[in-house]
Amino acid sequence: MKRTEIKELYAGMEELGGKTVTVCGWARTIRDSKALGFIDLNDGSCFKGVQIVFEADKLPNYKDIAKLNVGSAIVVTGELLLTPEAKQPFEIHASEIIVEGTSTPDYPLQKKRHTMEYLRTIAHLRPRTNTFSAAFRVRSAAAYAIHKFFNENGFVYAHTPLITGSDCEGAGEMFTVTTLDPENLPRTEDGAVDYSQDFFQKHTSLTVSGQLEAECMAMAFGKVYTFGPTFRAEKSYTQRHAAEFWMIEPEIAFADLQDDMQLAEDMMKFVIRYVMDTCPQDIAFFNQFVDKGLVDRLNNVVNSDFARVTYTEAVELLKKNNENFEYKVDWGTDLQTEHEKYLTEQVFGKPVFVTDYPKEIKAFYMRLNDDGKTVAAVDLLVPGIGEIIGGSQREERLEILQQRMKDFQLEEENYWWYLDLRKYGGTKHAGFGLGFERLVMYLTGIANIRDVLPFPRTTGTAEF
Amino acid sequence: MKRTEIKELYAGMEELGGKTVTVCGWARTIRDSKALGFIDLNDGSCFKGVQIVFEADKLPNYKDIAKLNVGSAIVVTGELLLTPEAKQPFEIHASEIIVEGTSTPDYPLQKKRHTMEYLRTIAHLRPRTNTFSAAFRVRSAAAYAIHKFFNENGFVYAHTPLITGSDCEGAGEMFTVTTLDPENLPRTEDGAVDYSQDFFQKHTSLTVSGQLEAECMAMAFGKVYTFGPTFRAEKSYTQRHAAEFWMIEPEIAFADLQDDMQLAEDMMKFVIRYVMDTCPQDIAFFNQFVDKGLVDRLNNVVNSDFARVTYTEAVELLKKNNENFEYKVDWGTDLQTEHEKYLTEQVFGKPVFVTDYPKEIKAFYMRLNDDGKTVAAVDLLVPGIGEIIGGSQREERLEILQQRMKDFQLEEENYWWYLDLRKYGGTKHAGFGLGFERLVMYLTGIANIRDVLPFPRTTGTAEF
Repeated sequence: MKRTEIKELYAGMEELGGKTVTVCGWARTIRDSKALGFIDLNDGSCFKGVQIVFEADKLPNYKDIAKLNVGSAIVVTGELLLTPEAKQPFEIHASEIIVEGTSTPDYPLQKKRHTMEYLRTIAHLRPRTNTFSAAFRVRSAAAYAIHKFFNENGFVYAHTPLITGSDCEGAGEMFTVTTLDPENLPRTEDGAVDYSQDFFQKHTSLTVSGQLEAECMAMAFGKVYTFGPTFRAEKSYTQRHAAEFWMIEPEIAFADLQDDMQLAEDMMKFVIRYVMDTCPQDIAFFNQFVDKGLVDRLNNVVNSDFARVTYTEAVELLKKNNENFEYKVDWGTDLQTEHEKYLTEQVFGKPVFVTDYPKEIKAFYMRLNDDGKTVAAVDLLVPGIGEIIGGSQREERLEILQQRMKDFQLEEENYWWYLDLRKYGGTKHAGFGLGFERLVMYLTGIANIRDVLPFPRTTGTAEF
Repeated sequence: MKRTEIKELYAGMEELGGKTVTVCGWARTIRDSKALGFIDLNDGSCFKGVQIVFEADKLPNYKDIAKLNVGSAIVVTGELLLTPEAKQPFEIHASEIIVEGTSTPDYPLQKKRHTMEYLRTIAHLRPRTNTFSAAFRVRSAAAYAIHKFFNENGFVYAHTPLITGSDCEGAGEMFTVTTLDPENLPRTEDGAVDYSQDFFQKHTSLTVSGQLEAECMAMAFGKVYTFGPTFRAEKSYTQRHAAEFWMIEPEIAFADLQDDMQLAEDMMKFVIRYVMDTCPQDIAFFNQFVDKGLVDRLNNVVNSDFARVTYTEAVELLKKNNENFEYKVDWGTDLQTEHEKYLTEQVFGKPVFVTDYPKEIKAFYMRLNDDGKTVAAVDLLVPGIGEIIGGSQREERLEILQQRMKDFQLEEENYWWYLDLRKYGGTKHAGFGLGFERLVMYLTGIANIRDVLPFPRTTGTAEF
């Protein structure tokens, strides 16, 4: 049996017309009369399925097929007929249908609308629905686009560790990773838990960022990126936060904040273009049924020169609209989503980089500007969701970095290797972090992070 | 400044001869006399560096440059001169050298040989050495090759979760993931630790495999793969085991063990070819200094038709050599590395798939063969290391799977969703797991897993 995927049927239908093909997939719907039946067959290779026509005259097992429940897996061999006048461009007239796996009448994905909440409870089956099939194909395409972009631009892909003995930013709640038996915890002489007897002989956690290790790699390869899972143990029930998510963190040496922004802009445009080119059926579905402005918004990003504005300038722009904000803006306050969306949607009408934030509201490793008040940080804001990327130029000057660590009450001895990078051939360098789920939400219009992760882990939930 | 990477110099040296270029990198060695100096500059973009020639006559800061310590970061602008008679095909005659970051005389990577053990203690700097620079470039290229192979073959990349409430194989020690305070553990009425108050409201661990979730995805997309971190909490001090490592797990629907083996063979050949084509300098280095048989062995894999033999046949072959084995082979015993290497190196002289192992020594989800004694498992053995891939056809028959779970004392209620896949349109399906570090070791000849992971996590060690 030479299997052909439905995606290939769409790509090659002109040549395949009149030919015999074999397709494998799952029945989305089955309709039949006494002599003639129709199956909407989907195999996940692309958004669209193919209509299978089967006839009592031609199939010895016609009755068995007609009785199949929705969700059954079948292998169909038949002639592909072009149907230029019908809704679908072609159909397959079956000469043989083999039942690979039956389904039962209680199959949860009957042909009706289900709520997203319900579908989350059957995460093992929901990839067989239109929405999730499209979402995870787009997710896959976007992931490949990320790798392709960085590979073509000479970046080394760096696998930074997930289990860590330190907390990257000195902030953010973390998950403990341990093999100690909680019923029988070893104790030190003074009664504390003795982590020297734990697997790694010390207390370890799941990382919140691979940045510091990526900086080590950038000081050898010049251009590197990470793309891997990241964790936050913050109790949150919002639509935007998961406890386990994927993040992309490029890091570039001999580069400043301007180079960092150029990289972020090039990457965003490349990924969006790639997904629109590669998954047109999926994007069209999302544009029609999930988010009517999706395609316009994505095209706007691809075709814009991203704006650049300093935090100080942004605050002046926002203050003019303070009366309409829930949180009033003033220099020194962090920007909220309402401010970010106002800037990118109302003021600029396109993506905008906001740079040079007050040092008090940003991380210790961001480079102190000459004004002594701001750091070379950057957030990329995009219409529709606000912040999608956060980055900075890193502090490469040893003494200033040490002072900043003191200000943040970080122990130098935990960061000896990070400080070493400034002693031995340190360079100007910069990088950013892109939350991959936020990108997929942006590419699909899906509003809840639980619906772009195949098996989401959120506060209180780790099913499947 | 338009920066050119050294890799681009090698690729375009014919056109660049006589032109002015700017390169950025780190000084590996610096030699100077009164009027003339030489720097071996490396930027990590490829294995080779470029020789910088600098002259007192031309550089106002000649003395500063001559005094630089090894490891300093510099930006060099100068004329590229082809030197067809010299050891290196070109050099750069500097018209300007800017010091980006100095180094100090205690820079640990002076021009001398260091032991691998010592270099592990400076994992933040070792990517600047020949061996590790090459190892992590090969690692990056191999990762890209994996993604490229599956993408070009229509696979969906599935991100399966790392935090899990269940243990995939009912075996293997796992790390606990928790936010409970060990000094103040909540207790249930009967005094046990109350995991309902933990972050996920139950006990959770780090996954040992994404296979079961990948099977869910395969039942929607037909062909999927995972590529992500995986964990083992087994105390092990061998050269081959890390607590955190990366794994690739493809899963294919409407497919049997034969399809699975074909996929594994195609993937291995593709990845090896890609890395040999993309990193020729690196592979040449490993072949010369790390493992003299490397290139021959890789070529042998690429050019072989992999052999296929059943476990039962393999045991017969091995028994003839039992006198030379530490562990004697008999039907029913698991194969040790000595047996695996003997088979692939001595008996077949090329990669060999061993199939159909006794059901007692394999996992519960592997498909029971008609003989009732063996399962449709497969290991791929390769010359040099033995087992590199383990896979199987999965048990798609509900009743048999339920019986197998009973045999393995697994609770059905923990796998309700996995069993659902057999109720609703289940198909023949198969997959395998490839340990990515083992692949990188195979591609480089590096013997210790600690040296192919940028920041290894092993028993007792989670530095950086």
